[in-house]
Amino acid sequence: MKKIAACIGGGVIGGGWVARFLLHGWGVNVFDPAADAVRKVEEVLANARRSLPALADVAMPEEGKLVFCDSLEAAVSDAQWIQESVPERLDLKHKILAQIQQFCAVNAIIGSSTSGFKPSELQQQSANPGQIMVAHPFNPVYLVPLVELVPSASNTTETVTKAQTLLTAIGMKALLVRKEIDAHIADRLLEAVWREGLWLIKDDIATTAEIDDAIRFGFGLRWAQMGLFETYRIAGGEAGMAHFIGQFGPALAWPWTKLMDVPELTDELVQKIADQSDAQSGMHSIRELERIRDDNLVGIMRVQKDANWGVGEMLKEHDQRLAEQTPSSVQVTDTSLPISTYTGKVFPAWIDYNGHMNEANYLHVMSLATDNFMKIVGADSDYVENGQSYFTVETHIRHIDEIKLSERLEVKTQLIAQGPKKMHLFHSLYHPDSGKLLATGEHLLLHVDLKLGKSCPAGEVVQNKLAVIFAQHCKLPQPEGAGNAIKGPL
Amino acid sequence: MKKIAACIGGGVIGGGWVARFLLHGWGVNVFDPAADAVRKVEEVLANARRSLPALADVAMPEEGKLVFCDSLEAAVSDAQWIQESVPERLDLKHKILAQIQQFCAVNAIIGSSTSGFKPSELQQQSANPGQIMVAHPFNPVYLVPLVELVPSASNTTETVTKAQTLLTAIGMKALLVRKEIDAHIADRLLEAVWREGLWLIKDDIATTAEIDDAIRFGFGLRWAQMGLFETYRIAGGEAGMAHFIGQFGPALAWPWTKLMDVPELTDELVQKIADQSDAQSGMHSIRELERIRDDNLVGIMRVQKDANWGVGEMLKEHDQRLAEQTPSSVQVTDTSLPISTYTGKVFPAWIDYNGHMNEANYLHVMSLATDNFMKIVGADSDYVENGQSYFTVETHIRHIDEIKLSERLEVKTQLIAQGPKKMHLFHSLYHPDSGKLLATGEHLLLHVDLKLGKSCPAGEVVQNKLAVIFAQHCKLPQPEGAGNAIKGPL
Repeated sequence: MKKIAACIGGGVIGGGWVARFLLHGWGVNVFDPAADAVRKVEEVLANARRSLPALADVAMPEEGKLVFCDSLEAAVSDAQWIQESVPERLDLKHKILAQIQQFCAVNAIIGSSTSGFKPSELQQQSANPGQIMVAHPFNPVYLVPLVELVPSASNTTETVTKAQTLLTAIGMKALLVRKEIDAHIADRLLEAVWREGLWLIKDDIATTAEIDDAIRFGFGLRWAQMGLFETYRIAGGEAGMAHFIGQFGPALAWPWTKLMDVPELTDELVQKIADQSDAQSGMHSIRELERIRDDNLVGIMRVQKDANWGVGEMLKEHDQRLAEQTPSSVQVTDTSLPISTYTGKVFPAWIDYNGHMNEANYLHVMSLATDNFMKIVGADSDYVENGQSYFTVETHIRHIDEIKLSERLEVKTQLIAQGPKKMHLFHSLYHPDSGKLLATGEHLLLHVDLKLGKSCPAGEVVQNKLAVIFAQHCKLPQPEGAGNAIKGPL
Repeated sequence: MKKIAACIGGGVIGGGWVARFLLHGWGVNVFDPAADAVRKVEEVLANARRSLPALADVAMPEEGKLVFCDSLEAAVSDAQWIQESVPERLDLKHKILAQIQQFCAVNAIIGSSTSGFKPSELQQQSANPGQIMVAHPFNPVYLVPLVELVPSASNTTETVTKAQTLLTAIGMKALLVRKEIDAHIADRLLEAVWREGLWLIKDDIATTAEIDDAIRFGFGLRWAQMGLFETYRIAGGEAGMAHFIGQFGPALAWPWTKLMDVPELTDELVQKIADQSDAQSGMHSIRELERIRDDNLVGIMRVQKDANWGVGEMLKEHDQRLAEQTPSSVQVTDTSLPISTYTGKVFPAWIDYNGHMNEANYLHVMSLATDNFMKIVGADSDYVENGQSYFTVETHIRHIDEIKLSERLEVKTQLIAQGPKKMHLFHSLYHPDSGKLLATGEHLLLHVDLKLGKSCPAGEVVQNKLAVIFAQHCKLPQPEGAGNAIKGPL
C-alpha cells in the first residue's frame, strides 16, 4: 500500500511534519487555506532537505509526492496518518477533527500536534475517539526527534503500538505518555522555565540574552545528552542520586523560584521582551537563525552518534531501518566491476572556510567506503569483536575536483591487489548524477591480530571472499593513477 | 608574579575548580580536611586532563603545581584567587570566609561557589566585604564554561572587572549577574524544572528516564546552542518574538505547571526517585557516566566551534588568548630545520572502535599543520579573505605507528619543493616526548584564485617567504619515503 500522510495546517509545525514524512518516502497531502501556505511549506522543506539527510549514514528513501489539496476531504480520504496542526483552541480543534473524521478511513490514525490539550478533551464529541491521539512534536519537527504520544483510555493498545511504530519509522523518538495530563511532560518543564524567565525579565534581573547565555553556556550543554536526573546522579558523585537529593532537597523549601506566582503579561512586558530579543538576535534573519540552529542540531546529534549515546543510539537504529528499506551498498551481488561502497550527501560540518569539502573529509568518505568493503568481504563488526581487523598503513589521495555542500557522492572500489595479510584498494569518488570523478584514494591495508598488535593472515572466509573479487577485478584495467607517486611541482 | 589559586573544599565542585586553574598554568593550593580529599581531587583531575585540552586548537600552558595544604592559612596566604566550595550552609560559609580573610592578601579575590546565597549575605560580618563575591560554576567545572559572577553594592567595579578578566582567562564564560537574587539566574530556572520534575514522578506521570528522554531528545538539543528566547524567536516564525508570545502567552493562565505548589520530599518520594534512577543509569558506574558526559560535552562544544557560534565563538576567543600566552608554533624564527607546525593532544572523538586514532584524523592533523604552514608563509585568513588560497591536490599518508587517546603529537614540516603556483610539503608526525615517528604526510598544494576558481601565482610576499624557507630546506636530506608510491602487497 502506498504510504500517504495528510497534514492539516502548514505552519512552522505542520510544515515540519510535511518534511519529515516526505523525506522518509511518504506521499503527503497538505490542506491549509492560508494564502501563503505553499510558500511557507516549501521554505520549511528547503531547510529540511539540507539538514535531515545529514543525520543518516545510509541512503534515505526517494522523496514522496507532495500535493497541496483544495479541500480537507481530498487531503484525508486516502491517508493512513492524519496530523492536525491548527491553532491551540479547543473549539477549533473539535471542529477540524469532526471534519477529518467525516472523510477519513476508520482505521487511519489522527495525531494532534497540541501542546497542551489532553487526548480525552480532543476526543469529546467524537463517534470514533479511538483513532484520535496526541502526537506532540518539537520545532524543528524535521530534526528534533521527540514526539510525545499521548493516548487516552479510548485508544486501544493496538492503535498505540501502530502509532509508535509508524512515528519511529520516520525517525522520531515516540515517547509514550502513560497518563494524560495538561501540557504532557516536556511542555510542563518548559512552561516552568518560561514563567521563571518572564519574572527574571520583568524584575530586571536579567535580559533575554543573559538568560539564554545562562542556559547555553551551562546546563543546556548537559541536557543535549543527559537529562535532569542522570546529570544530577553524576553531580551526587559516588553516592549518586540519594546523596544529591539529600544535599539539594532542602532548597525546595527556599524561595528559589517565583513560581508560586505568575507574572501578568502586560503590553509593557511583551514590548520589553521583544526589544531585548531584537537586541540579542536581530542581526540575524529568522532564516539565518534557522540554518545556524539546524547545522548545530545536526552536529550535536552526530557527536552522540559517534558515541552511540542517547539520540545517537536512536539515529543508528534508524539507519538500520532505513538500510533495510532501501537498496544497501553492502548487499553486493555483482563483483565483476568496481563495487559501490559508499553513497551519501555532503554534510554542512564537512565544509571549510572556502565553502568546499574539507580535505580531511575526503579521507573520511574513503574510510567509510573502506569500512563497507571490509563488511563485504566479511571483516565486519563481529569479526573485529573477535579480535582481528584491517589497519590502513598507507593512503594516496588525489583531489581532482571541488566538492560542495549537499552534493551527492558515490565511491566505487576496485581491489587492485591482495594477499593473506594485505589488501590494496582503489576508491574512485564520483558525483553519481554527472559521473564526474571528484577524487581517488589508493589504500594499502594490513590484516592484524588486535590482541597481539601484529599482522597475521586473515580468516579463511575473508581470504576466500577477497580471492573471488580479485579474480574478477584483476581482469579490469588498472585505474588511472594507481601506483603513482606524487610528482614534484616544478 | 606567580599565579596561585587556593581551593577551599575539594569535592566535585572544588575539584573541578582545581582542574580548571591547574590546566591553565596556575599553581593551586587545596585545603580540604576530608580523609579522601586527595583521591577525589586526583580523580576529577584525571577526567579534566583527558577532556579539557580537547577543546583547544592551540597548545595549553604547562600545568601548574598542585599542593595539598595542611592548613587553611598555608593554602590562602599567597593566593590571588581563593575559591570557597564548602557545603551550602550560611553559618559554615561565614566561618570559613572569616578564616580565609584572616590569612589572605587584602587584594585577593574570594569567590564563593554557592548555588543560592546572595553575595550580601556572604559578606555579612566581614570587615572587607569588597573582596568577597559569588562565582557560581556548573558541574563539570573543568568543561562547562558558565560561571555566574554576582557582586553586591560592596564590590567595586574595578574588583568585578578584575574577577571577570581572570575567570575569562581560565576559559570561563563569566556571566555578570547585575542584581543579586536568591539562586542567581541559572539555578532559578533549574529549580523550576526540578520542582516540576518531582511532581511528575510523585504523580506517576513519568519516570526519571522518561523525563530525561523528554529533555535530551527534545528541547535539550536546542538549548545546547540557543537558549529559551532565541529558540522561541525562531518558533514564532517570520513574525518573531511578539507573535510567539501572542500565541503562547494565554497558556500562562492555564494549569500547565504544578509550580504554584511544592511537593513534600518524603522518604517514599526520595526512594522512588533513587530506584528509578538506578533502573535508568545503574548499568554505568559514575566514573563511566562522567567520561561519557565529558566526551559528549567536548563534541557538542566543538561542533559549535566549527560553526563559530555561542560557546564555540567563546572557545575560539580563548584559543587566541592561550596562543598569546604560550609560545606559538606559528611564530617561527629558525627555518633551517623542519618547522614545528602542530602540537596537540589526541581528542576522544578521534578514537575509533579499535581504540586508535581514526585514519581520517591523521589527515585532519596534517591539514591543521598545513594551515599553520600557510600562515607562516603569509597565506593566512586575511590572505584567503582577499581571494587567494592554496588547495591540496594530492596527499600521501603513511601510518607508521598506532596513536592512542590523549597522546601528545607534534608535526614538523619540510618544504621539499616549491614554485610560483605550488608548494610540496612533507609533514612528519611525531610523539614529541619519545621522538617516535607516527606517520608521514606528503602534500602537493596548488595556489588558486578563489573567484576565478583557477590556479595562479602566489602573492609576492608569499613567494618570497617560501623561497627563503626553501633555500634552507633544500639543503636538508630528502625525508625517507618522500616521492614514493604505494608498493603492492605481494
